[in-house]
Amino acid sequence: MTDQIKSDFNYKMTIAYDGTAYSGWQIQPNGISIQAQIEEAIKIIVRKDVKVIGSGRTDAGVHALGQIAHFHCDRDLDLYRFLGSVNGILPRDIRVKSIEEMPLNFHAQRSALGKVYHYHLYLENVQNPFNRLYSYHVHDKMDLELLRKAALLFIGSHDFTSFANEAHTGAAYSNPIRNLKRLDIVYEQGGLRLEFEGDGFLYKMVRNIVGTLLEVAKGKRPISDIEAIFQAKDRKKAGMAAPPHGLFLVEVYYGIVAPSGMSSKDE
Amino acid sequence: MTDQIKSDFNYKMTIAYDGTAYSGWQIQPNGISIQAQIEEAIKIIVRKDVKVIGSGRTDAGVHALGQIAHFHCDRDLDLYRFLGSVNGILPRDIRVKSIEEMPLNFHAQRSALGKVYHYHLYLENVQNPFNRLYSYHVHDKMDLELLRKAALLFIGSHDFTSFANEAHTGAAYSNPIRNLKRLDIVYEQGGLRLEFEGDGFLYKMVRNIVGTLLEVAKGKRPISDIEAIFQAKDRKKAGMAAPPHGLFLVEVYYGIVAPSGMSSKDE
Repeated sequence: MTDQIKSDFNYKMTIAYDGTAYSGWQIQPNGISIQAQIEEAIKIIVRKDVKVIGSGRTDAGVHALGQIAHFHCDRDLDLYRFLGSVNGILPRDIRVKSIEEMPLNFHAQRSALGKVYHYHLYLENVQNPFNRLYSYHVHDKMDLELLRKAALLFIGSHDFTSFANEAHTGAAYSNPIRNLKRLDIVYEQGGLRLEFEGDGFLYKMVRNIVGTLLEVAKGKRPISDIEAIFQAKDRKKAGMAAPPHGLFLVEVYYGIVAPSGMSSKDE
Repeated sequence: MTDQIKSDFNYKMTIAYDGTAYSGWQIQPNGISIQAQIEEAIKIIVRKDVKVIGSGRTDAGVHALGQIAHFHCDRDLDLYRFLGSVNGILPRDIRVKSIEEMPLNFHAQRSALGKVYHYHLYLENVQNPFNRLYSYHVHDKMDLELLRKAALLFIGSHDFTSFANEAHTGAAYSNPIRNLKRLDIVYEQGGLRLEFEGDGFLYKMVRNIVGTLLEVAKGKRPISDIEAIFQAKDRKKAGMAAPPHGLFLVEVYYGIVAPSGMSSKDE
């Protein structure tokens, strides 16, 4: 036995937040992050510093309905009371929806098998003021049939280098291949919802794909460009990133996490 | 002919707003009103002072999906261009959804035949952060059957004096009888929507009814109190007003407005 504090418990939280007021999920030198808000709230409850690990970061202005994060703690928490306390301390635009105890080897990022993101487009002439912070108002006319055809080209396993911004660390991705299982275009009141499901997403990948899709649907570039962009493996070839406020992290899912041994995901 | 500026045109606007940031619809000495924002935007377009008359005021924090307002103007406006201009000038939490020309005797308040308000209650343990400004989070347990029974007692023509705050003018209502045609309780995600439809509403009437209904549904007062409150004709007998942010003015409706002569509503 070493002298270190024993962390016997591993807790998984499902978190929803309105990203409007924050500099993003991840703690940064400037700006208020969602991660910091949650760490500070938990510190008040457990009276110790905790490190909250999210399934991945979301950028400034991006929202979440089902972000997942875990933290280790040496206390056997009363989870019902914890939920009341943490939401009592957190600002009202961040809510811990649920908490459960997990095996010690569960890791919010490394154990994830897939994620679902939604991107909301508002297409009517006058935007609903209640959607202004939660959907991207597209004023230009779009060819929705072309949008649908272009979306199909992204489905499946691809090297998404051209649709990925450099990660904050500056390091290149060791493996830029991701499997986009689903890119559905669903009508919703006032516009469209683009539903992305994949085994993982590179940095800004969803917003870069949406931006490129919009350029094609507006007739600003031919649909044949998409294959060429993939081939180039160069971020500069793809379209502008769509703005953050239309994007929601909806779900992160996991396999069955065995109570000991290996993580359920290959490294 | 007198010297006065001729107002040849009467325009009816349908307006949606997020009331969170405003002191209410009506211009007031302190705080920023929605009416003032709209008058200032129109002034920039028509280069003259205009008086915008709403169907009625909404309080600070109350929202609208379909507020109606009219203004007179001596210019024959290009309505499509007006809509683009006014929404370009207005802050994004106020939108003019549509504008149409009306007969000169149309009056947003006096011609109204009825209104629909919705009040949103959020009942789950943890509130959805995206509803925090648009629904009232009720933590206490409620008897929904009792809520439904109590709501029925408000339907029909009643003297609603006990459910009306004094108007800002301080003057008593000459006629406090209103016909509440409908008070439906509808399930929606996370809670309930109380739909009020009536020929008119006294000041704070919807919020005072909701507050009283909640006291009954929580078991804090017997359902038999409601009849006694009506009889007393005394605001102090009814429950607390429910908070403003759950309330939406959804629709104001009008009969056919004849192009000249009398307004369609009796005074």
